Amino acid sequence: MEKIFERLQKVRTMAPLIHHITNYVTVSACADVTKCFGASPVMADAVEEVQEMTNIANALVLNIGTLNSNIIESMKVAGKQANKKQIPVVLDICGVGATTFRNDKAKELLASIKITVLKGNASEIATIAGLETQTKGVDAGAVETNITDLAKNLATKLNVVVVITGVEDIVSDGKDTYVIKNGCSTMGDIVGTGCMSSSIVGTFCAIEKDYALACVSALVCFEICAELANKESCGLGDFKVKLFDKVLSLNETIINEKKNFMLV
Amino acid sequence: MEKIFERLQKVRTMAPLIHHITNYVTVSACADVTKCFGASPVMADAVEEVQEMTNIANALVLNIGTLNSNIIESMKVAGKQANKKQIPVVLDICGVGATTFRNDKAKELLASIKITVLKGNASEIATIAGLETQTKGVDAGAVETNITDLAKNLATKLNVVVVITGVEDIVSDGKDTYVIKNGCSTMGDIVGTGCMSSSIVGTFCAIEKDYALACVSALVCFEICAELANKESCGLGDFKVKLFDKVLSLNETIINEKKNFMLV
Amino acid sequence: MEKIFERLQKVRTMAPLIHHITNYVTVSACADVTKCFGASPVMADAVEEVQEMTNIANALVLNIGTLNSNIIESMKVAGKQANKKQIPVVLDICGVGATTFRNDKAKELLASIKITVLKGNASEIATIAGLETQTKGVDAGAVETNITDLAKNLATKLNVVVVITGVEDIVSDGKDTYVIKNGCSTMGDIVGTGCMSSSIVGTFCAIEKDYALACVSALVCFEICAELANKESCGLGDFKVKLFDKVLSLNETIINEKKNFMLV
Repeated sequence: MEKIFERLQKVRTMAPLIHHITNYVTVSACADVTKCFGASPVMADAVEEVQEMTNIANALVLNIGTLNSNIIESMKVAGKQANKKQIPVVLDICGVGATTFRNDKAKELLASIKITVLKGNASEIATIAGLETQTKGVDAGAVETNITDLAKNLATKLNVVVVITGVEDIVSDGKDTYVIKNGCSTMGDIVGTGCMSSSIVGTFCAIEKDYALACVSALVCFEICAELANKESCGLGDFKVKLFDKVLSLNETIINEKKNFMLV
Repeated sequence: MEKIFERLQKVRTMAPLIHHITNYVTVSACADVTKCFGASPVMADAVEEVQEMTNIANALVLNIGTLNSNIIESMKVAGKQANKKQIPVVLDICGVGATTFRNDKAKELLASIKITVLKGNASEIATIAGLETQTKGVDAGAVETNITDLAKNLATKLNVVVVITGVEDIVSDGKDTYVIKNGCSTMGDIVGTGCMSSSIVGTFCAIEKDYALACVSALVCFEICAELANKESCGLGDFKVKLFDKVLSLNETIINEKKNFMLV
Repeated sequence: MEKIFERLQKVRTMAPLIHHITNYVTVSACADVTKCFGASPVMADAVEEVQEMTNIANALVLNIGTLNSNIIESMKVAGKQANKKQIPVVLDICGVGATTFRNDKAKELLASIKITVLKGNASEIATIAGLETQTKGVDAGAVETNITDLAKNLATKLNVVVVITGVEDIVSDGKDTYVIKNGCSTMGDIVGTGCMSSSIVGTFCAIEKDYALACVSALVCFEICAELANKESCGLGDFKVKLFDKVLSLNETIINEKKNFMLV
């Protein structure tokens, strides 16, 4: 549990290849942050090549932010190859709750691929769990439930690691449930921090088989970067730039001093 | 007319959802700037979901920068829903004049949707008005006409608010015509300021029913940010970052001191 | 050969229109850097309009980073128009080696269009040359060959200018072969420098008919910016911002002091 820095070092040393099939809004930020962590991002979504691309990858990150029917088809092909090759699959259900199409396609992916990590904000995850929610596009809507229980129960039900991001993040594999208190509210004031954290989650899952701990490590590292960036930044543009800057500065001392999570 | 700051505050308080169907070049900048202003951007273009997404939105922003037939189809579906729900529709005719396909599709959108705000640079708007123009991709070409009259006449003819961006911006609903002198030439030296201003125009139209004044307010706010960024920036990369930084710093004093527009 | 600054000035004065059909990951950075150099980028990939767009352009840049069948079709149509109009065509074979689909489509493009500049990293170019390579998504894999000979021989065989980017870059038209030692390792630590350099190569080819020298000039200019950025930057986010900042600061003194290339 205390091996966050060791996992970061493993990412830096092994430089895993992270195949993304993701949205065209935050794709550049996702590639950038994956690269900053020392991994190698590759974005490819043509159905003719995703199987081969996943085959050489160490993790697959699926994000339905700007889904369409073709991309969902490619996600299924890539996901099946990931399952066959037994590499982790992260599914970011970006925007679920906003439209029936999104809800249906997210469920289709969950039904046709063995997902390793299911990630979303509280209202997105609650929608998948069948709860009534309010949604506002890709931003979190109100959820009237205990999100720790939500994560734990859904993780057990679907046999996945559930990650709920928000002011506090919840990570649960159904057995162990973690609360992560790192990060800052500025993360919610810019676009893409949710998608970027999915990329980092995929990156850490590529090198750590205890997927709940991989998720915790990824979120702690990324959110410490956000805390450091926030302290020095002079605006939202600058915050986003410094978020990338801080990744290389992560070391054992900083991580041990700043990490703020617990098993609940 | 003098309520620019009040409108900005309304955006910040109400955080309207701005559904974009836009190009993949500047989409990230559009999302970022919309978020910086306090609104909630959502980008979704699959024909299966745009109707539902527009239905929960407070404004629809259409930008044909990297159009294709599927996206135009989605724009029509979303536009009709916006009309039905009576939320404003901004159409940025990015690149019109460069190809017949762009010209035709822009006209198709104008014919099939009730557009609230038609926005472009001088040569793009002149092309829609049927004038001879020179175009250079997505950058403004030469136009030999009085652009104030151009805006006013086209606004009357099409029953829309026409926004022409450039060194000076023109906003006209056919009755009232405004000239905005805020901004700086550096805005034209980077990619995306035109698209970003369409996002902000959509954002202000979501909270202000006098659409001409909404457009003026949006442009004045965004262009004051550009002026502030320009004063401090040490290059074109830094200018773009500071453009986002300055949005949060907008307050009543700055706006009243810097605003530079008039009814003509 | 010594006219790098003159070529940069020609770009700034003539502001060529650079039509890109490129990937959605680095497209924004490509547009930004093209604009920073003083050229006018336009991104358009709909098969219905690419012929007309290429027809008004001064160079065509093709990048298969996120290829699909539709985009390849558009590339062929645009490429043929570029050939007809005798404007240069740059092909960045981003990710070749990773999948059969990419390899096949790159070869199809080479067979159906007269390419002016073929650009890639060492493993991508080696794959096209028929050598055994290891690839890692879009990052360079190991190549056991003399890359100067590789560039020279492939240039002669295909009758193109071959550009291999890496720690040292090779530019060869089969007759003259240049090694460029500008740049810094940080360029490989962020996403998009390869794609951006293709945009700049296209930009310089638009104004200089000795295409090998155009490529050398483009790479020297861009990589001097990287050196300058690297000296001042405080992280990978900041490096990317400063890379854009430095373009405007390029002048005759800096170029002559920093340029580091030779005919071999």
